Amino acid sequence: MAYSPLIEQLIASLRSLPGVGPKSAQRMAFHLLQRDRRGGAALAEVLGAAMERVGECRDCRLPTEEEQCSICRSDGRDAGVLCLVESPSDVFALDQATDYHGRYFVLGGRLSPLDGIGPAELGLDRLEERLRSGEIREVILATSPTVEGEATAQYVAELAREGGASCSRIAHGVPMGGELETVDSGTLGHAFAGRRRYE
Amino acid sequence: MAYSPLIEQLIASLRSLPGVGPKSAQRMAFHLLQRDRRGGAALAEVLGAAMERVGECRDCRLPTEEEQCSICRSDGRDAGVLCLVESPSDVFALDQATDYHGRYFVLGGRLSPLDGIGPAELGLDRLEERLRSGEIREVILATSPTVEGEATAQYVAELAREGGASCSRIAHGVPMGGELETVDSGTLGHAFAGRRRYE
Repeated sequence: MAYSPLIEQLIASLRSLPGVGPKSAQRMAFHLLQRDRRGGAALAEVLGAAMERVGECRDCRLPTEEEQCSICRSDGRDAGVLCLVESPSDVFALDQATDYHGRYFVLGGRLSPLDGIGPAELGLDRLEERLRSGEIREVILATSPTVEGEATAQYVAELAREGGASCSRIAHGVPMGGELETVDSGTLGHAFAGRRRYE
Repeated sequence: MAYSPLIEQLIASLRSLPGVGPKSAQRMAFHLLQRDRRGGAALAEVLGAAMERVGECRDCRLPTEEEQCSICRSDGRDAGVLCLVESPSDVFALDQATDYHGRYFVLGGRLSPLDGIGPAELGLDRLEERLRSGEIREVILATSPTVEGEATAQYVAELAREGGASCSRIAHGVPMGGELETVDSGTLGHAFAGRRRYE
């Protein structure tokens, strides 16, 4: 037995969403059909508009339907400091957690030559120009502590050095409130090797 | 800091989906924007079409964009046997698990007077007509074993009896392959009280 063609298509399409398998797709489809037609129609409309109109900020590559994102537009932000992140949600997370008031650069991934992701795919050619021009005096590397994230950080650190900018990497170690015994050994080794003078 | 208006709207709209909180909505939005524009556009289109065009089968209330669903249209199905279920996905689950070849009736919920869900909301007025007309000779009650599911089953059993149809309820008890000690006491009590002669 199969549902009607349109419902089968809807269930298949919902699986484009990350983390949605066949069962959740079915549950979502029937929830919208039976209980929330209005929400479903609104989602269809805004999703269509977003897929068509959202591009990226010309300066930092944050997705936006405007030419420049609100951070790069803002006069209250220090244009000489740049924090390098992998994904748009990292911008949000850092901005909520810190009082950082510089700008960001969103890679949209990490260097991974085997997957065909080189500097150009991450917009690093554009970043290189900006670093060379000398307008940036400080770069904060906030890529993830994975092999590829580290490689990406090293690559950008090199560019920053050539452009004369100072460079720092966010700290990695035992999470606040974490019990040592529950932390994986890689993190623990890193935290131990990266210990700082206690004052 | 907030994302651009269209992206904020997209994240808010994705929360219409059941089981999607703020973090998953954000992850879904950026996944589609950065990695799957085509999938996102296809989803927008089919979702819009489904919200507009899907109605329900005139006989069994299964959601469909056609006048009658494929089951009610089929000549190979016994029109004299009706299985009562709460949701469209129950139809799929039962059809896959059994060799049932009668028809279904989809309530789309359960009787719950406190929430304003009475017989009319579940299409029971329409079902009553069909039962009274004598065209149905057997009703299988497959509503869920909750208080409201039981109340709904009892209500329909009464209608079936008036219409002269025989009536059965699917069995509830220890799930196949289940260990007794992991089964909740309500289910265990029900299974014990509902024991059948062993032959």
